[in-house]
Parts: sequence; structure tokens; C-alpha cells
Amino acid sequence: MKELDDLRQRLRHFAAERDWDQFHSPKNLSMALSVEASELVECFQWLTEEQSCNLTAEQLAAVTDEIADIQLYLVRLADKLNVDIPSALNQKIAKNEAKYPADKVRGSSKKYTEY
Amino acid sequence: MKELDDLRQRLRHFAAERDWDQFHSPKNLSMALSVEASELVECFQWLTEEQSCNLTAEQLAAVTDEIADIQLYLVRLADKLNVDIPSALNQKIAKNEAKYPADKVRGSSKKYTEY
Amino acid sequence: MKELDDLRQRLRHFAAERDWDQFHSPKNLSMALSVEASELVECFQWLTEEQSCNLTAEQLAAVTDEIADIQLYLVRLADKLNVDIPSALNQKIAKNEAKYPADKVRGSSKKYTEY
Amino acid sequence: MKELDDLRQRLRHFAAERDWDQFHSPKNLSMALSVEASELVECFQWLTEEQSCNLTAEQLAAVTDEIADIQLYLVRLADKLNVDIPSALNQKIAKNEAKYPADKVRGSSKKYTEY
Repeated sequence: MKELDDLRQRLRHFAAERDWDQFHSPKNLSMALSVEASELVECFQWLTEEQSCNLTAEQLAAVTDEIADIQLYLVRLADKLNVDIPSALNQKIAKNEAKYPADKVRGSSKKYTEY
Repeated sequence: MKELDDLRQRLRHFAAERDWDQFHSPKNLSMALSVEASELVECFQWLTEEQSCNLTAEQLAAVTDEIADIQLYLVRLADKLNVDIPSALNQKIAKNEAKYPADKVRGSSKKYTEY
Repeated sequence: MKELDDLRQRLRHFAAERDWDQFHSPKNLSMALSVEASELVECFQWLTEEQSCNLTAEQLAAVTDEIADIQLYLVRLADKLNVDIPSALNQKIAKNEAKYPADKVRGSSKKYTEY
Repeated sequence: MKELDDLRQRLRHFAAERDWDQFHSPKNLSMALSVEASELVECFQWLTEEQSCNLTAEQLAAVTDEIADIQLYLVRLADKLNVDIPSALNQKIAKNEAKYPADKVRGSSKKYTEY
């Protein structure tokens, strides 16, 4: 994923210019990422599921912002740990295909606690 | 980001094959994403910052798994809301560059509550 | 709240006996608490709102467990910071009553982002 | 815990006066609680563990506010599900004493992923 790699470079530069590497331990970045994930949840907490499928322009703009924040921290964390996101994804999808065979789990929410 | 787009297609197919679209409201996906973010936090909660920079192979494998999970749900959510992640990123980075000018915030953690 | 105070003492003893104070910095405890909060969210993530009001015995037992975990970490954190939970509650409820006057916000979810 | 019970009554009244019961499904309350837990994490994310033990007055006030918010939502959720927090605590502490015998786990962070 050349594009994730470009993002990695940009964020690395962004942090270096601000002397922020000192704050970016993986522990701290995991905290920051989870905070952004909760800001995303906050956008949806009082909406019904149906309303969450039909956001207003203002709601969608807020959600889009949080999606970007999560992506930024995720790439920053992966960079700090030398984790290659595309490889991690391929491994995980293969694992999920084995864990949730389409013909077995079809329509079942029971066993569906994660991808 | 062609690669994020490929991932989007794969996950769409994965959900369709399992008839899981019924569970994938944006509200529910935001919850699932935040749960994965916390599983990431769990990997680091009792480590010092220094330890978090020097993970064992086992710890790193667990973290890598969670990074993949977060990326999967993020792409799935963005797909459901027709959010284009690369555009969202470009917007957000421009916003952050204006909000945190390198020469002003250098080394300051004070104003540094997000990217 | 004498009972919260008893709990505080019990948890303090529990940690001391296990030599766990070394791990219980407020930073780490906040992470642990948020992880427990997400385990609670996990119980509900694929349920409809209506289903969440009508849990099975098994689901309710899991939720009850998470409620206890959150309460434990909250009391432990407050103890570490010398925060008196009953006073904090009284302050906060007074603040909320001023912020959300019953006659103004009745039935409105708009401004309702927190208590 | 008479005091938690008083709090339960106050919050029930608070919600009824504002016609907010319609938003307070257990699913939604779990989301709101996790959002507050992350606001707590946000207070600590860029602090060192040592700094988190020595908060400024301003930082401590912010943390105290979040502790109250978490307690409020926890009591509200327990009320909605008829969960008795004191009983839940007693059960959980007994479970933890069996799971983490003091003489076995002393000083070990290894097995220490929860209370």
C-alpha cells in the first residue's frame, strides 16, 4: 500500500518538526487512538441504528474527521512498531476466513464478536 | 489509495457472503471499532512506556492483530458511510498543520491533545 | 458513602497483598478502566437497543461482571488520587442541573451529549 | 450501599424530568459510559506515569469530573438492568481472590490483566 506508506512518511515528518516523538511511545499512541475511537462512538451514542445510516451533513463531517484521526494514529503507531499494515491485514483476513466460514456462520450474530 | 479500496471491496464481499450487513450499521461498527481499540490498549496497560517500545515477539504479534482489526473496521465503517479515507486524511492533515504550526508548538505537550 | 469507602479499603488491601501498587499509576488505571468499559460495550455491540433491554440470563451475568470491574477500577483510581467520589458526584449533578434545565431540554437529544 | 441507591433515585428522577428515558437503552448507556472512560484516558495520554501521580489542581479537577461522569452512567446503567452494584462487587472480588491468590501472583504483572 504505497499510499499508507506515504502517509507514514508525512506523519513521521509532522511529528519530527514539532519534536513530538518524545510523546509518541506505543503506549501513549494506543491511548490516543482509543480516545479518537470514542470520539467516533460519541457521534453515534444517542442515534438509533437507522439514524446512524442517515447522517446529516454536519454529523457526517464530524464522523469523517474522527475516521481520519483514527487512521492517522493507527499509521503512526504501526510506524513506531515497524508493523506493516498491509501484511497484518492479509494475515488477519485469512484468519477470519478460517474462523468464520461463510456457509457455517451465515446470518448468525452469535459467534460474531469480531471480524 | 487503491489498496484501501481493494480492502473495502474484500470486506464488503466478506460481509455479504455471511449475511452480516444487517449488523453493520454505522452505530454498531463504531462500537466494534472502539472495542478493538481497547484490545490494543489492553496490550499496553501494564507496560511502562519504555517496555512498550521494546515488545517481545508474542506481544508484537498481539498488537499487530489488533492493528489489523482496527483497520478492518475503519474501512468497513467508511464504506458504509461513503467516506473516502484518503480525502478525509488530506483534509485533516491540512487542518492540523494550521492548528499546530511547527514553530509554535515545538516540544509542547500542552496544546497537544490530538493530531 | 461508607460503602464506597469500605470498597476502597478492600481494594487497597488486595493490591498491597499482591504487590501491585507498582502497576497502579493513575495513567495505567485509567487505561484498565477504559478497557473494562469496552468489554461492557462488547456485550451490546451486535444487539439492537430493544434486545439490550431484554438480556438473557447469560448476557446479564456477563454485563454484571463488567459493571463490577468498572466500579472496582473507578474506586481504585479515585483512591490513588485522593478523589472523594460522593463529593465529585454532588458537584457534577449540581453542574448538570444548571447545564440541562429540565424545562428547557425536555425530550431533546440534541444538546444531550453527557449528563 | 444506601448511597449508591440514593444516587440511583436521583438519576432516575433527573432523566424522567427531562424525558430522557427514551435515549437510555442499556446499549446507548454502555456507549456513553465508554466515552466518559476515554475522556478520563485523554487526561493522562501524554503524561508520564510519574506525572499522572502528581497532577496539577487543574488536571485533578478535570479527572474528578470524569470520575463523576463514569460513576453516574454506571449507576444509571445498573438501574436500567436491575443490577445491584454491591452484590456484583462482592461476587467479583470473591472471584478475583480465587483467580489471583496473593501468594502466587505477588509482584507479577504477567497474569495481571484485570482485577
